Amino acid sequence: MEWKIIGIIAAVCTTSGFIPQIIRGMRTKRLDDISPVMYMLLILGLSLWLSYGIHIDDMIIITANAAGLAFSLFIVFLRFKYIRRR
Amino acid sequence: MEWKIIGIIAAVCTTSGFIPQIIRGMRTKRLDDISPVMYMLLILGLSLWLSYGIHIDDMIIITANAAGLAFSLFIVFLRFKYIRRR
Repeated sequence: MEWKIIGIIAAVCTTSGFIPQIIRGMRTKRLDDISPVMYMLLILGLSLWLSYGIHIDDMIIITANAAGLAFSLFIVFLRFKYIRRR
Repeated sequence: MEWKIIGIIAAVCTTSGFIPQIIRGMRTKRLDDISPVMYMLLILGLSLWLSYGIHIDDMIIITANAAGLAFSLFIVFLRFKYIRRR
């Protein structure tokens, strides 16, 4: 049972990790140093993990990767928005 | 069998995603816009995923999260190094 909890905490950490990056980006209106290629790979990987989670019907994998995918897409959008504004 | 391959591709994408960020950081010598709090959470999460992978003896989870952990630590080191240099 504890390992299930460790898996949930791990998923919460890796998924919620995007939130401080979003907050920082919105505060500084600057995300130039972020690699868009990194986020493209993350978006691809998270999409595959999401489809994998749906296939094996695992709510933790589905929720973590759906949230991670939404956050990653938002970061890419913010970066594009702030760079275009200058 | 295909879903095992999708899992591997997903792991490769999310893990290799850090590499373009490292390359960009080393090229520009600038990682100011990256949220250190994000990487702290990622490092914590990846460490937990790594221990989870060791517990269930799953080489894909172990390899992906060990590599992700090493890359994340290196990005935090680079950020610290470049900011301190100025």
